[in-house]
Amino acid sequence: MRILDVALAARSYPIYIDSGLLAQGKLWQPHLGTGGTCIVTNETVGPRYLPALRTALPAPPLAVVELPDGERHKTLANVERIFDALMTAGAGRDVTLLALGGGVVGDMAGFAAACYQRGVRFLQFPTTLLAQVDSSVGGKTGVNHPLGKNMIGAFHQPAAVIIDTDTLATLPARELRAGLAEVVKYGLIREPALFDWLEAHAGALLAGDAEALSHAIETSCRIKAAVVAADEREAGERAILNLGHTFGHAIEAATGYRAWLHGEAVATGMLMAADLSHRLGWLTAGHRHRLAQLLQALDLPLSPPVLTLSRWHELMGRDKKVLAGRLRLVLLRRWGHAITTADVEPAALEATLRAFGATAD
Amino acid sequence: MRILDVALAARSYPIYIDSGLLAQGKLWQPHLGTGGTCIVTNETVGPRYLPALRTALPAPPLAVVELPDGERHKTLANVERIFDALMTAGAGRDVTLLALGGGVVGDMAGFAAACYQRGVRFLQFPTTLLAQVDSSVGGKTGVNHPLGKNMIGAFHQPAAVIIDTDTLATLPARELRAGLAEVVKYGLIREPALFDWLEAHAGALLAGDAEALSHAIETSCRIKAAVVAADEREAGERAILNLGHTFGHAIEAATGYRAWLHGEAVATGMLMAADLSHRLGWLTAGHRHRLAQLLQALDLPLSPPVLTLSRWHELMGRDKKVLAGRLRLVLLRRWGHAITTADVEPAALEATLRAFGATAD
Repeated sequence: MRILDVALAARSYPIYIDSGLLAQGKLWQPHLGTGGTCIVTNETVGPRYLPALRTALPAPPLAVVELPDGERHKTLANVERIFDALMTAGAGRDVTLLALGGGVVGDMAGFAAACYQRGVRFLQFPTTLLAQVDSSVGGKTGVNHPLGKNMIGAFHQPAAVIIDTDTLATLPARELRAGLAEVVKYGLIREPALFDWLEAHAGALLAGDAEALSHAIETSCRIKAAVVAADEREAGERAILNLGHTFGHAIEAATGYRAWLHGEAVATGMLMAADLSHRLGWLTAGHRHRLAQLLQALDLPLSPPVLTLSRWHELMGRDKKVLAGRLRLVLLRRWGHAITTADVEPAALEATLRAFGATAD
Repeated sequence: MRILDVALAARSYPIYIDSGLLAQGKLWQPHLGTGGTCIVTNETVGPRYLPALRTALPAPPLAVVELPDGERHKTLANVERIFDALMTAGAGRDVTLLALGGGVVGDMAGFAAACYQRGVRFLQFPTTLLAQVDSSVGGKTGVNHPLGKNMIGAFHQPAAVIIDTDTLATLPARELRAGLAEVVKYGLIREPALFDWLEAHAGALLAGDAEALSHAIETSCRIKAAVVAADEREAGERAILNLGHTFGHAIEAATGYRAWLHGEAVATGMLMAADLSHRLGWLTAGHRHRLAQLLQALDLPLSPPVLTLSRWHELMGRDKKVLAGRLRLVLLRRWGHAITTADVEPAALEATLRAFGATAD
């Protein structure tokens, strides 16, 4: 088993990575509180993995909440369903929420845990690659607002992250690829050697090779844990984890959170960020090309939907990184090194948008 | 002007107390962020005090949200109205929310500030005595759930609390009395000298004497700030601020948050807590009598609605202080000294409930 630590002083917690961990209650039961559990899952994951998790619990859960599957269901109304279940079950401040599912389930269960009785304990059992390499680690929780993604939420760290790699065996290929986009991101922002490794192992990863996936998960979690430990509440550095996300969120919002998976939108968004970085003279055309090649090898989309320039600006303007009315973008200052900047020449941004199909108004 | 400090390291903030502070923008503008403001108020307070606050702002607010007045409107749906207004106005993470109103407005605006983009700045401008002596200080924010009071929320400290004592001039007498109940609480839990002072000045306070009210506000805020500074997230000590609240919340819930003001329910709840403390041998009959006399002098209710014993237990069981299924009560271990205990003999509790009219099932 691989064990990593997210070092956050009193809020530190472990990440366990191995096959079969859902059923290994002895490993993670010490992280439960004393007041019973409430499992939050979705209608796809629940039928598949609830039995294993239930059996591994020391006592039957107080409640099980099965939410609809999909990013468009990441709403305050669905978090209210969790509150209702907790209140109906008489759950106290000592309850522990267990998030069993992908990023959407983890974000909503985590936000419910942040707010129920002003904060209760929760554990992440991520079952998608995207959740395992990214969203289950770091304490960002929340829901979407009709006008913008992840606009309502809280920083609330889990008590442990339990990554059972067996769950990837049933993950649809498209979701596996979407998760790999976030792994590519870690290579781009911090670790060129990871990028090289991904180029060499794209085939193995797509084929579901367990050893390759475990390595990708461990490396991703190690990088994310280090970034989060240095800047838990995103006062600065942590924003680099959003490479490709400002473009990506715009793509997701423009398509109603239905047509694109989050990881797919991030893939295209990273390519756009690399293109813009190249136009600013920070990245060579060769590097931009290598990224396009790797994304293509991973069967990830390279082109956003066709939007007008003003629609792009409108959607990107809703980003949480906007300060004093100025858009801030995460770009690559050089290969393997991301920065946040508010000083992008509008002409360069427009050139990138046009290169990716943006039309005049 | 009186200035107090809530000492919470990086989250420390001042409390300003004086007449005319709403209009003194120079005093509190340094606590605003750089991204504009959003005022949250209600339909009663807004028409009266919005003009003064608006005029004192350095720029027109991005948005003004006028919520319905009353505890029963302290709901997630109304917090969503604040999110909608912020999103529609394009407010960024650098926005500052201004809570102009009583405890309900402050709790909802504070919770919206805690969750919008995972946390933005907010200022409290409390306009009721209850909010000035209690709810605006300490960072407890949140809303009610249909099954229990303040069940959904967050700890989120304001950047400053600006108490304009002029707002009390238009406060209905009944709300003034309800606020005085929380002042009595501070005397009971920590400062017998305050209790003595209240006995001597009940008439002046009810008559709206400005000097007496300012003294009551300052003393209350000083005690609350000390308790909160010692235990921001209620790991222990802070729970004593809930004296009378477990009984009180049951009264409020039983009457649908309509018939009783929060302070009125707390008044009756404190008398019940004192009665139970007396039955446990911790308080003399004389002290219990002094409390009843003072509450009566302040024209506060001494008797709860008639409920069955099982209804009392059901409603009290939803308290946030319940741990491992056990009710924990704040009681008076001696005059002027409150403690939290889970070791109350059921027979003593039942005797208190019966003494206050509880019927068999």
